[in-house]
Amino acid sequence: MNFSINRDLLLDNLLVMQRGLPLRTSLPILTTIKFDVKEDHIILTSSNTDIAIQVLIEDEDISIGKTGVLTIPGKFLIDIIRKSTSNRIEFTLIEDRIVVVKSDRSEFKLRLMDATDYPDIDFLSNDREPLTIDSELLKTIIKETSYAASTSEKRPILTGVNLKYNDNNLLVVATNSYRLSQKEVKLRSKATDFDIVIPSKNLDELSKILDNNSTDILMYVSHNKVLFKIDNILFQSSLLEGTYPNTSRIIPTEFPVVISFNKDELLLAVERVSLLSPKDRDTNYNIIKLRLNNDHSVELLSTNKEIGDANEVILPSGDVVGTIINIAFSSRHLLDALRSFNSNEVVINFAGEVRPFVLKSTQDDSLLHLILPVRID
Amino acid sequence: MNFSINRDLLLDNLLVMQRGLPLRTSLPILTTIKFDVKEDHIILTSSNTDIAIQVLIEDEDISIGKTGVLTIPGKFLIDIIRKSTSNRIEFTLIEDRIVVVKSDRSEFKLRLMDATDYPDIDFLSNDREPLTIDSELLKTIIKETSYAASTSEKRPILTGVNLKYNDNNLLVVATNSYRLSQKEVKLRSKATDFDIVIPSKNLDELSKILDNNSTDILMYVSHNKVLFKIDNILFQSSLLEGTYPNTSRIIPTEFPVVISFNKDELLLAVERVSLLSPKDRDTNYNIIKLRLNNDHSVELLSTNKEIGDANEVILPSGDVVGTIINIAFSSRHLLDALRSFNSNEVVINFAGEVRPFVLKSTQDDSLLHLILPVRID
Repeated sequence: MNFSINRDLLLDNLLVMQRGLPLRTSLPILTTIKFDVKEDHIILTSSNTDIAIQVLIEDEDISIGKTGVLTIPGKFLIDIIRKSTSNRIEFTLIEDRIVVVKSDRSEFKLRLMDATDYPDIDFLSNDREPLTIDSELLKTIIKETSYAASTSEKRPILTGVNLKYNDNNLLVVATNSYRLSQKEVKLRSKATDFDIVIPSKNLDELSKILDNNSTDILMYVSHNKVLFKIDNILFQSSLLEGTYPNTSRIIPTEFPVVISFNKDELLLAVERVSLLSPKDRDTNYNIIKLRLNNDHSVELLSTNKEIGDANEVILPSGDVVGTIINIAFSSRHLLDALRSFNSNEVVINFAGEVRPFVLKSTQDDSLLHLILPVRID
Repeated sequence: MNFSINRDLLLDNLLVMQRGLPLRTSLPILTTIKFDVKEDHIILTSSNTDIAIQVLIEDEDISIGKTGVLTIPGKFLIDIIRKSTSNRIEFTLIEDRIVVVKSDRSEFKLRLMDATDYPDIDFLSNDREPLTIDSELLKTIIKETSYAASTSEKRPILTGVNLKYNDNNLLVVATNSYRLSQKEVKLRSKATDFDIVIPSKNLDELSKILDNNSTDILMYVSHNKVLFKIDNILFQSSLLEGTYPNTSRIIPTEFPVVISFNKDELLLAVERVSLLSPKDRDTNYNIIKLRLNNDHSVELLSTNKEIGDANEVILPSGDVVGTIINIAFSSRHLLDALRSFNSNEVVINFAGEVRPFVLKSTQDDSLLHLILPVRID
């Protein structure tokens, strides 16, 4: 087995494979990247229990001498290629289980694991009808929703993001039961309806791969897996089992108080007021208060018995509906929600002092954030 | 007590004070920054058990209404001013122990500690004869030596940097007993001789303050303290007690093998070869080998039973003295030493396979690094 490849081409593809390598694993073979060297192309595979990734390298920048299969320690190989300043990298199998990786004047002899131990990975076949989705849109959807999922394993289903597709309509929801993000988009392409829950951390890994690829993405869904096809990359994630809670009924529909803000002004003010705010016992988040006064000025407040108080006045950026409201919440939840908006303006819709409030953008109706208040002592 | 001050001016000075705040302390008052507000200037003080810092702010950008003394929670104040987008900050004492910090539409009421609890700090008086040293030179000396000091408290004296001044000659040495850095410079100014050991972490803090100040620095020395005067800043450090080991006798003087390298080429090669190298049991550092061959090529090698071997050939950048040598050492020590050089070329002088080797630059004779080899099995 021997082949040579352009260094940058290899590194780009290895960095995609890295997203599939496990951080910890009881199966040592999964710490390797599998190289299937064929006559005129190379297939790379990496996988952990949750994610499997495969790329097809078919390029004039590879030159294949002899075909074969290699399972190379992934982390080490990536470090070596990253540190290489050579233009070209040569791989040669010199013994049954030793590959020489050569670039310029450096030579690494790497011990291989037994390639036959590498598990067969069942990528969803292309014969299903896929959903087509624009790469930029998918990246945006992940950015806007994934952060809102739970990081606690108390209710495993909430560590995922719910994607519901029905008749060209894609509804995406994530929540940790204290806050919720919901995105709804119309898609041009048509596919079979689905209702799935993808682990949010897998979507975050997918998002990093999307950063370097702008193209139409094909999405294949089965009962326990989802496959994203991005050019020459296959990214497959397991799905979470169980029924995602019906969140639509917790979103209020009547809002007696509505206030528009300049997003950046609000963000900075919340950051400042949070500096002194005490932590909530349950969530360890900083709690701040928002008060709409009779004169339509808005105050943000926090009180810390040991350090002191913070108070900031913000002027709403547009018309204000309603009169007085006094509501307390985690500043972290509000900051997360504000940061996920691309628009300059946000509108906060209050349903009452002990009811969830809803953030929307004036420019884009597809995105909604909901935050639960905490009780004020 | 009330005054107002330009935000940037305040922040710049607070960031200097931050270097003196303790990370942990059993004396809560030391978590504050002391403001001495006088008729026409403000003196800020911060201190931990090791470092004391004082700055004098005398600027047309402060406007003082009423004098007084405040001890304000340091970390919180710095966070607040850093997040402020206001041009001006107002401080007003509204109760005996509450100060209002106001900027634009934000208002922080901070609880103060009792200013009379703040310890008296005895800064060395200016009546001694100081040593004058250029700020850039002092920064360079710290960068080149401080990293080599020990981080272990086994031999506390080695956590410091030894500065010996004698007849216009300043000799600076740091070592952790596995490697050593020595810098020797001639100074223009004359002062009383001294031989002191400054904690290396304090020099690192000083170095960060020097980043923003280029000027002549005055250095005052007593038996247990050293004071650096940088414009309007006083930076005082405690000294380590005890006798610094005499390191001159461990530096070899005869070098049968001498090899010159392009510094960056060597650095990259060492980084690559270290990727696979096993860790030394004592130091947890990666051990690599350097071999000078008969044909004057130099090989770097590492062997890892589990992962594989690395081998890189480097061509010396100049003449080679000597024939064969085969020596093993911590790659981390070599990398640290190489990174502290400003020159493009380094010369490694070998005294033998089990004797320390010495790095020097061809351009600058004032700096010397020494590294102890490890035994090869």
